[in-house]
Amino acid sequence: MNIKREKWSNNFSEWFDWVISEGEFYDYGRYPLKGVGIWLPYGFKLRQAIIDIIRQLLNNTGHEEVLFPMLIPEGLLKKESEHIKGFEEEVYWVTKGGSEDLDVKLSLRPTSEAAITFMESLWIKSYKQLPKKYYQIVSIFRYETKATRPMIRLREVTTFKEAHTIHSTFEDAENQVKEAIEIYKKFFDILGIPYLISQRPEWDKFPGAVKTYAFDTIMPDGKTLQIGTVHHLGQHFTKAFDFKVQKADGTLDYPHQTSYGISDRVIASLISLHGDDRGSVLFPLVAPIQVIIIPIPSKNTDDTNKILEYSENVKSQLISAGIRANIDKDTEKTPGEKFYIWEIKGVPIRVEIGLREVQNSSVTLKRRDTLESKAVKLSELITEIRKLLEDIENNLKSKAWESFNKKIFYAKTVEDANKILEKGGVVELPWCGDNSCGLKIEELTNAKVKGIPLESKKINDSCVICKKPASNVLRIAKTY
Amino acid sequence: MNIKREKWSNNFSEWFDWVISEGEFYDYGRYPLKGVGIWLPYGFKLRQAIIDIIRQLLNNTGHEEVLFPMLIPEGLLKKESEHIKGFEEEVYWVTKGGSEDLDVKLSLRPTSEAAITFMESLWIKSYKQLPKKYYQIVSIFRYETKATRPMIRLREVTTFKEAHTIHSTFEDAENQVKEAIEIYKKFFDILGIPYLISQRPEWDKFPGAVKTYAFDTIMPDGKTLQIGTVHHLGQHFTKAFDFKVQKADGTLDYPHQTSYGISDRVIASLISLHGDDRGSVLFPLVAPIQVIIIPIPSKNTDDTNKILEYSENVKSQLISAGIRANIDKDTEKTPGEKFYIWEIKGVPIRVEIGLREVQNSSVTLKRRDTLESKAVKLSELITEIRKLLEDIENNLKSKAWESFNKKIFYAKTVEDANKILEKGGVVELPWCGDNSCGLKIEELTNAKVKGIPLESKKINDSCVICKKPASNVLRIAKTY
Repeated sequence: MNIKREKWSNNFSEWFDWVISEGEFYDYGRYPLKGVGIWLPYGFKLRQAIIDIIRQLLNNTGHEEVLFPMLIPEGLLKKESEHIKGFEEEVYWVTKGGSEDLDVKLSLRPTSEAAITFMESLWIKSYKQLPKKYYQIVSIFRYETKATRPMIRLREVTTFKEAHTIHSTFEDAENQVKEAIEIYKKFFDILGIPYLISQRPEWDKFPGAVKTYAFDTIMPDGKTLQIGTVHHLGQHFTKAFDFKVQKADGTLDYPHQTSYGISDRVIASLISLHGDDRGSVLFPLVAPIQVIIIPIPSKNTDDTNKILEYSENVKSQLISAGIRANIDKDTEKTPGEKFYIWEIKGVPIRVEIGLREVQNSSVTLKRRDTLESKAVKLSELITEIRKLLEDIENNLKSKAWESFNKKIFYAKTVEDANKILEKGGVVELPWCGDNSCGLKIEELTNAKVKGIPLESKKINDSCVICKKPASNVLRIAKTY
Repeated sequence: MNIKREKWSNNFSEWFDWVISEGEFYDYGRYPLKGVGIWLPYGFKLRQAIIDIIRQLLNNTGHEEVLFPMLIPEGLLKKESEHIKGFEEEVYWVTKGGSEDLDVKLSLRPTSEAAITFMESLWIKSYKQLPKKYYQIVSIFRYETKATRPMIRLREVTTFKEAHTIHSTFEDAENQVKEAIEIYKKFFDILGIPYLISQRPEWDKFPGAVKTYAFDTIMPDGKTLQIGTVHHLGQHFTKAFDFKVQKADGTLDYPHQTSYGISDRVIASLISLHGDDRGSVLFPLVAPIQVIIIPIPSKNTDDTNKILEYSENVKSQLISAGIRANIDKDTEKTPGEKFYIWEIKGVPIRVEIGLREVQNSSVTLKRRDTLESKAVKLSELITEIRKLLEDIENNLKSKAWESFNKKIFYAKTVEDANKILEKGGVVELPWCGDNSCGLKIEELTNAKVKGIPLESKKINDSCVICKKPASNVLRIAKTY
């Protein structure tokens, strides 16, 4: 069977809007406020399964979940000046309570470094209490003036997982950055989401960070999407809050911090990267429904009843084996209509049961990823389904990485880079390391600098701008 | 051993602040904004366990979890006029994005009836799609002008579980109200939280409701705390949104709705009701740590190492058996200091392990609820702990109900009622059923009318105000 990915890659934006709406993941564009959406029951379950994975990864590495207030008073948010400058134009302000004007403006949190540092300064007095690793999963708010997009660029980001850690030394924080990168690698690997890790250039760091690393994936249309960031905050916030702790030698010093976050974009990329022209193809591990059973009714009512009874039996067997299975018993839709909708919803395996299957004690399985069908004896059902779910995960992962790797290019001149960028993807260019040349590249390509690779690449070419020997490559891409 | 409950009942407010702060549940009063708090890791885990229970009860009864935007534009919130009148003075308004004034004021959701009804009007066209039962667990905001209290009266309520259902007929919605009441009964019963269910009087219904039922518990100081509400909304909201669905006979009509909610107050009452002068006594089912192991070090280092090794072994056995266990290995605290803090934190069972225990292949168990100690052979550890956890749950439940039942009174005159109210609790008074007499009772007692019992009580006395034969009792109490 032919897996088409034309609509998917050529009209990605349209495809994505269609899938999340027809697949009943997310309602967007109808609520009377720009840039916010509604997680529908099916999408909510997918979201929850993804959250469970990151929670487990964080809990297993000594992170503790907390919940901070959503409102940050103006004075608190403005303590660190670089930080507020970076967010100033994006902050929503509450100015009224009932009909009264508030004495102090309250921001809807754009991120929580300021609030958390303030509380840490009350909680932590000595190096003996360090390190501490906190995280929370919350809504954050940005008054986006750019075009908004469902799950990708929102005014309310409803699934912001932000981790905040604090350490005695710069090196301890540096090691925490490494741990955070490892955690995110694991997380994206589990979900089969391909990524590049880049250190962002000086001019694109998180406001208030010493260094920012970012995970970028490449969407079906060739544009990159930032799906995770890790920041070394150094002492920026602890100094702004004049927050010192006692060190082993009895002296006082400002502790060092990191923060790292992921958002709804993980869900957007999961839905997008594994999809095809028929809709989404959900990764079995997190699919709300892993197996959908479609009874094919017979003209004869007795036979139809047998088919339904048999279907219920198949469902029970699957559920007892811990597989998330359901039957579509809608009597007003034809099997064909059901196939169509469950394909958009991306259920990994379809089980078709008609009279023939009942008579043969079998079922017909159809994989969503390859669209291949297969008859299976009832006695082998569980073994086959388990194997298929695993096969589908492996196939989705390797297909996603294969297509991703084809979109990473190397170019020795700005002209070549521009030609490649027309088609999308990431271009690596030889670069001398000077910010001025980096900014010039951004100007000449009309693309965005994503930064340098986490592991430096030694190359023998010369910087595309100044022609001095290149010390590394610089990654550029059209981006969301 | 003597279980003291003097501080607990005589200085309840102080006791509660002490427990949530020293027990590291919740940081309150130090963040620079009134009426908001921070869920600390230990409190967060307790909160999560409680949320898991209500989620399961709702999912098992066909409720679907969703997530709606936090911001509700002014026009949407104001559609139902009774509703907005009820909340008008309590709504926070966002008026600025960056340095720009917004065209439309945005409210921080005080509750979500308006937002959900609006979206339902887009989703639901026919009675065939009904009923629908949605819920979400979110933060809501109220600009409280009364004195705020941690978890009890907040400006940001961080754990608001709101369910919203929609039905073809008034009777279907009425039945849903019954289902909701049953779900909440189960929920509070699981946690051993005693309650009275009352139908709130006309003048204290939820703004926009036809009828409101409420669950009240009684806090250690004798004041009632509303811990759950269930509303029959009738067609109030669907009419305001001019939202009709097609009925079986082809005509159009406004559907009927209900909504019901619980909040952080459940956690406040769980911590409070089972506590004593030494701190909280956590209900084993939801205790983040069910068993805390305290090694009692010896003067001899080798012996201490043996004790630690033995403790680790006990911990592994407990964890393998699915019991949430931990060891307090802090070397800077004495066992006595550890006992003190884990008692405040309310861990249900303490396991003490010293040299004697190691030599006898035993452990010493101490129940947090009764403070009784007991030596147990290592070979019987798991069986004993399981039994004890169950005993503790049963004991906490029956103790809470016993003390609750003693605080429900009957009085035939306002004077008698006032005498009883001095000491706290709920007083039931004979009442004719007229609102004017009800309001008069409220005026004369300086207490709050909680309403009439879910199941009417037939009595032969006369109304305390007008002396006409009473048709029911009216409940009054001093309340949070």
